[in-house]
Amino acid sequence: MINKKNTGGEWYNEIIEAASLVDKRYPVKGMNVLPPYGFKLVSLVDGIIRSEVNSYGFQESMFPLLISRDQLSVEFEHVKGFEGQVFWVTKGGIEPLEVDLALRPTSEAAMYPMFSLWIRAHTDLPLKLYQIVTTYRYETKHTRAFIRDREIHFFEAHTAHVDLEDSEKQMAEYRQIMKSVAQKLCLPYVINRRPEWDKFPGSQYSLAFDLILPSGRSLQIGTIHQYGENFARNYEIQYSDADGERKFVNQTTYGMSGRLVAAIVFMHGDDKGLILPPAVAPIQFVIVPIPGEKKDLGSFSAKVKNQIESFGYRVHLDDREAYTPGFKYNDWEMRGVPFRVEIGAREADGNFITLVPRNTGKRKKIEVRDLQEALAKAISVLQSDLMSAAMKMMSDLTINVNDIKNAKTSTGMIRLMWCGRKECADKIEEETELSCLGYPQDDHGEGSCVVCSLPAKPAYFSRTY
Amino acid sequence: MINKKNTGGEWYNEIIEAASLVDKRYPVKGMNVLPPYGFKLVSLVDGIIRSEVNSYGFQESMFPLLISRDQLSVEFEHVKGFEGQVFWVTKGGIEPLEVDLALRPTSEAAMYPMFSLWIRAHTDLPLKLYQIVTTYRYETKHTRAFIRDREIHFFEAHTAHVDLEDSEKQMAEYRQIMKSVAQKLCLPYVINRRPEWDKFPGSQYSLAFDLILPSGRSLQIGTIHQYGENFARNYEIQYSDADGERKFVNQTTYGMSGRLVAAIVFMHGDDKGLILPPAVAPIQFVIVPIPGEKKDLGSFSAKVKNQIESFGYRVHLDDREAYTPGFKYNDWEMRGVPFRVEIGAREADGNFITLVPRNTGKRKKIEVRDLQEALAKAISVLQSDLMSAAMKMMSDLTINVNDIKNAKTSTGMIRLMWCGRKECADKIEEETELSCLGYPQDDHGEGSCVVCSLPAKPAYFSRTY
Repeated sequence: MINKKNTGGEWYNEIIEAASLVDKRYPVKGMNVLPPYGFKLVSLVDGIIRSEVNSYGFQESMFPLLISRDQLSVEFEHVKGFEGQVFWVTKGGIEPLEVDLALRPTSEAAMYPMFSLWIRAHTDLPLKLYQIVTTYRYETKHTRAFIRDREIHFFEAHTAHVDLEDSEKQMAEYRQIMKSVAQKLCLPYVINRRPEWDKFPGSQYSLAFDLILPSGRSLQIGTIHQYGENFARNYEIQYSDADGERKFVNQTTYGMSGRLVAAIVFMHGDDKGLILPPAVAPIQFVIVPIPGEKKDLGSFSAKVKNQIESFGYRVHLDDREAYTPGFKYNDWEMRGVPFRVEIGAREADGNFITLVPRNTGKRKKIEVRDLQEALAKAISVLQSDLMSAAMKMMSDLTINVNDIKNAKTSTGMIRLMWCGRKECADKIEEETELSCLGYPQDDHGEGSCVVCSLPAKPAYFSRTY
Repeated sequence: MINKKNTGGEWYNEIIEAASLVDKRYPVKGMNVLPPYGFKLVSLVDGIIRSEVNSYGFQESMFPLLISRDQLSVEFEHVKGFEGQVFWVTKGGIEPLEVDLALRPTSEAAMYPMFSLWIRAHTDLPLKLYQIVTTYRYETKHTRAFIRDREIHFFEAHTAHVDLEDSEKQMAEYRQIMKSVAQKLCLPYVINRRPEWDKFPGSQYSLAFDLILPSGRSLQIGTIHQYGENFARNYEIQYSDADGERKFVNQTTYGMSGRLVAAIVFMHGDDKGLILPPAVAPIQFVIVPIPGEKKDLGSFSAKVKNQIESFGYRVHLDDREAYTPGFKYNDWEMRGVPFRVEIGAREADGNFITLVPRNTGKRKKIEVRDLQEALAKAISVLQSDLMSAAMKMMSDLTINVNDIKNAKTSTGMIRLMWCGRKECADKIEEETELSCLGYPQDDHGEGSCVVCSLPAKPAYFSRTY
């Protein structure tokens, strides 16, 4: 395995394939196969998102993949934003289609014509829907699995509200949801308000959840958008209020993608490979028997496996005879299984197991009678270790600078004073080759702009994926 | 609600939309929206399939939607079978693509190039994968939601084996899986071996799971295919056996689609609307309080709801104030909720509920202390009622005939003696306007062909969807 620290990007590309998260040999550029292990990880992340949004009253639904050119040809800046990036279906069988069909790049144009049919009165609001689908972008930039794909695993929530106040409450709710999801994935982040020129096409404003990776680049793992009435006016989504007056709805969206997987890989992995947070690890405990000369470990291993399973954990017994325990240790460490359970003659005779957390590698003896409590505790400790380490890394890589020169020579998420004007951001971007992430929402400092010295607030700049 | 018996097709089209299983107003032909209620039903059916195939060691994975023309242009009858029915992506942004990309009509051409990379030795076999995705067919026939869509909700399992014997065992396992799945959906079926000219393109033979709907037409709810080495030879999927000899794998597939939903709707529904099998009903119990003059039913209703939920059931309390209990009864009956729980003052005072199964409408008093046992029993009775009724209908609609004349005037699945030659099937099809479903696998009668009088076996013919 190549070294992580020195070769972030290469390490990433290698480990996701070695660990079977993805197979990049599929013959179409930017589209990858998810083999069972990778698919399971993605599904478990989806499961966390589902259970979180369901608890806030969201309902899952499914809209078609194909969007006709007519649906997309609303005179609206939203559409222009995607014009150059859409895959077009132009033929059915050997005949040209009457109207070209786009593969969804995102689903506003698929959903909102239906919203305008479904929403009649204020009693239909709020409407809170989501879907988990694949979306398609004709990326011309270099693709990278889970980060910049042409086929994207995508969660998108769409809401409609009686007024801006209610849709602002929704924006706050999204922040709660992101917090809970990220907690389970052990991912810290900052919330940046994207500058005007980088907001979602058609939105009033966009907030992005950004984290810094060990390489010093930032990665956007989710975005929420306040649409106000912008889309409602274009797709004619109106309701009658209690007095019978016709009003436009206010709307919001929340998007997350396979980038959550990329963040998990980048943030927690080490030179040995992945370290998966227990909440989403396809295998949480792998049992490796260590065969000795006289002892048959089969029945004790099976007993331990059944017990761990009975606590509701995902457990795998690796009793392959063709491989040594040492080989298995390396293999499962590389795949990021959070805990190894070693079982040798001593363990079987003494009715205990040896538990080895993936992050520390420190062996611990656990009596079988204490198993349930001990495993629950071990999970909670590992979970909190991963979060602490990630927060420390974020903090180490958040660099305060006072002038452009220092921004240029620093690596990480650069915090500097910026007046908010595009010309100053352009200048900073140009001189430092960093991108403006916008104003962090939970940072209320004040100062003067590093370019023009006008009154300014702290902003983040970084290299991005 | 229009009458079911007299207007099968119209009743179907109306009820699936009235019950919110689907919204057909989406602007692209043959592609429908699944609103939350319909999506949930589809997900629950998927869940049953998943849990069943997982228990047989299948692993879920995900292959890309897009298949390049090169991948499809293998010299092989399989490809020809789909030539006229594929949607083609020909543009990325405003530029033509270098190679046209097909939306998957089925995934052999997406998966098997990867299988040929993944499979090296006999220890890699059997390989048992599946995915649940949407597939696309440019249908030129009349479309009908869940039955003939251009966007199809699709389960596809693909396996690879060391030899034909092992892949024949897989075919038998598929039959077990279909049996368990159909049991939960209360769907009887017969297994027909499709005639040569109607087998899956590229397969050695195809078995179809066919049921007869009340309208007398048959509906294919699943198919399994024996590929033998046909695909392996075209996609070069080889392995080394224990002696190091290179051999082609043998393959099978199993497909099921949204047609399972269509079958549930058609088979169990009545003039009032849907009747959903408890295993897949999005709401299994709906509680309808019947407000009286003096009694507040809120706390008792909530208590009953929590109890039913604690047993692991999906329950909904309909406490909308704007609607009468009678309106709610009709509404939930139309949507097919298998059980209504009525709660009035008498119930609250007496600490009991009144349970009303959707199929019989017969009220039954159940003490709260007996709830768990009584509900479990009620579910099992309803489940078995639905299955019995469906089996009776299948049996009533299976018609034995001795000559073509009788076949012409009968409605249902027509059982007649056929010699197996295409010319005789053609003649039967032409004169009766029925389609040949093939030989039922569990029917071992003998006789002479209704056309040519040569030795024959019983075959099924019917109108199809």
